[in-house]
Amino acid sequence: MDSIAFDRQYPLNDLISDIKAGNRRALSKAISMAESSLDIDRKATEDVLEALLPYTGSAKRIGITGSPGVGKSTFIESFGLACIEQGEKVAVLAIDPSSQSHGGSILGDKVRMPLLARSEHAYIRPSPSRLTLGGVSNATREALLLCEAAGFTTIIIETVGVGQSEVEVRSITDAFLLLMLPNAGDEVQGIKRGIMELADMMFINKADGQLLPLAEIAKGQVQSALTLMHSPTDGWDVPVIMGSGLEQQGIQELLGICNAFFDDSASHHQALLDRRSKQAEEWFEVALHRELLHWAEHQTSWNVEKQAFLHDIHQKHIVPSMAARKLIGKLFSN
Amino acid sequence: MDSIAFDRQYPLNDLISDIKAGNRRALSKAISMAESSLDIDRKATEDVLEALLPYTGSAKRIGITGSPGVGKSTFIESFGLACIEQGEKVAVLAIDPSSQSHGGSILGDKVRMPLLARSEHAYIRPSPSRLTLGGVSNATREALLLCEAAGFTTIIIETVGVGQSEVEVRSITDAFLLLMLPNAGDEVQGIKRGIMELADMMFINKADGQLLPLAEIAKGQVQSALTLMHSPTDGWDVPVIMGSGLEQQGIQELLGICNAFFDDSASHHQALLDRRSKQAEEWFEVALHRELLHWAEHQTSWNVEKQAFLHDIHQKHIVPSMAARKLIGKLFSN
Repeated sequence: MDSIAFDRQYPLNDLISDIKAGNRRALSKAISMAESSLDIDRKATEDVLEALLPYTGSAKRIGITGSPGVGKSTFIESFGLACIEQGEKVAVLAIDPSSQSHGGSILGDKVRMPLLARSEHAYIRPSPSRLTLGGVSNATREALLLCEAAGFTTIIIETVGVGQSEVEVRSITDAFLLLMLPNAGDEVQGIKRGIMELADMMFINKADGQLLPLAEIAKGQVQSALTLMHSPTDGWDVPVIMGSGLEQQGIQELLGICNAFFDDSASHHQALLDRRSKQAEEWFEVALHRELLHWAEHQTSWNVEKQAFLHDIHQKHIVPSMAARKLIGKLFSN
Repeated sequence: MDSIAFDRQYPLNDLISDIKAGNRRALSKAISMAESSLDIDRKATEDVLEALLPYTGSAKRIGITGSPGVGKSTFIESFGLACIEQGEKVAVLAIDPSSQSHGGSILGDKVRMPLLARSEHAYIRPSPSRLTLGGVSNATREALLLCEAAGFTTIIIETVGVGQSEVEVRSITDAFLLLMLPNAGDEVQGIKRGIMELADMMFINKADGQLLPLAEIAKGQVQSALTLMHSPTDGWDVPVIMGSGLEQQGIQELLGICNAFFDDSASHHQALLDRRSKQAEEWFEVALHRELLHWAEHQTSWNVEKQAFLHDIHQKHIVPSMAARKLIGKLFSN
């Protein structure tokens, strides 16, 4: 499925300086390399990242989730344009675990956020999330750094809310925004407590017209549910905002809250710094497991031994957990 | 947190023969050993499992899930007693990811299934599910085998429906039963399609009294949703049954369907055999990763190198993915 993204006609030094200059074609090329599992691409990605590392880390990393039908695309378009109006450059990385097979749909993203896609201050990219060992794909973390190096100051990581992906997106972002429908009780019950506890801010979308009274009720219910929960960010009270992505209501209010959240002088700022450190350590752990396995799989007789043990497992001569211990002992005892 | 489960005063040979004789105290002791991560317990568990392996594999392994409030305990009690009436011995392993910290609640299980807990043909055990690398805990898989060796012919693995745990329980069972509430549209929408697609059978619980008409509607909706999905078991059509755990309605019907599902001569029987093979392979893979990491962490200078790279990561001198590759290359290149 993989094809080589690295292009010999496009020297890495040029690619690196093009990314630093904010060239979106260069950025896309580098993200494609980061998404590839081919050795040549991995190597090139690491060289690029090494050169660009000093230029990363300063963006606001915002995760956004919500049930299907909550109006995520329209909301992100409104919110993204509002960010641009206040001078930001906005990158949107969309993680869709269900698009694994067909590898995302760039065209789809351009259609669903037409104004944002046309802005020269925005960059939209679906991130085919291979659900790898340990959760969020390495590629998404690397794409985020590449966007930062390319000068994007707000990176939105969007996920369709299907189970595990919210936790993954939370694990690579500073702020996490949960979009909700003005469905009062049903919606509040439908969203798992575990997901609500991840959110730094809640936005009740579609709170316009006939739905406004329902949104008011929902807001009250969410606020009372929040009194029973811990904020994911020490020192930050989780706000609940009503609005409409379509009617561009509540967007400015939310933007103000976002700016407050990222205020360097706020008392909770240390919590954001701690979160970044912890995220870097988690990434390192996951990468270590992956690289270790990759190394082991390339050892002589790994496959032969594995097949032999598998045979014994299927013959019910050995329990898988014990087979694993014996295989590792046999190959790597020292 | 771990304390030694292995008891020098209780020789493994005695333990093994006691388990084979169906002694529940011996079974509990062995499951406690399987849940421990101490080397002495791991070794003892493997010896016990090796001796008991020939006596495992013949039980019906049934996973049961459903939202909080669906009436799981009452249902499992009714269903378990019905199994016992047809001559089965029933073990219930309850997986509760949220009970990680306080390690399950054996007393709680006895209270919530009082009749089943008192039956000499039943065994109920909460399985503290450490959410380990790769999902379902090794301990639960091993507990399942131990229950089989102790002569239990139906093993029910119960999970509170919180996200990932359904997938884990599906991955160690033959049949998966989803309990639903007679809430018509809301319920069907609330249960994620991904969860519905895991189920071999659906039981609409609390379908009695005033809720009966709603249950009928829900049944129709579930059935029409099912027409758009693939059955998880090739050759088996997913049935939707209405009933009540509390009123013991629909339980006999479900039991009959269960018996048909496990009928050796049925055309889908091969699918069950294939599923078991695949599950053994998955278990082996997960165990391999765990043992490999365990081995690596005990290598000289693993921790020293790890700390050094972590320092560089925090100083932003290196990207975590690259640090991981360098560490593995440095320690294990050959």
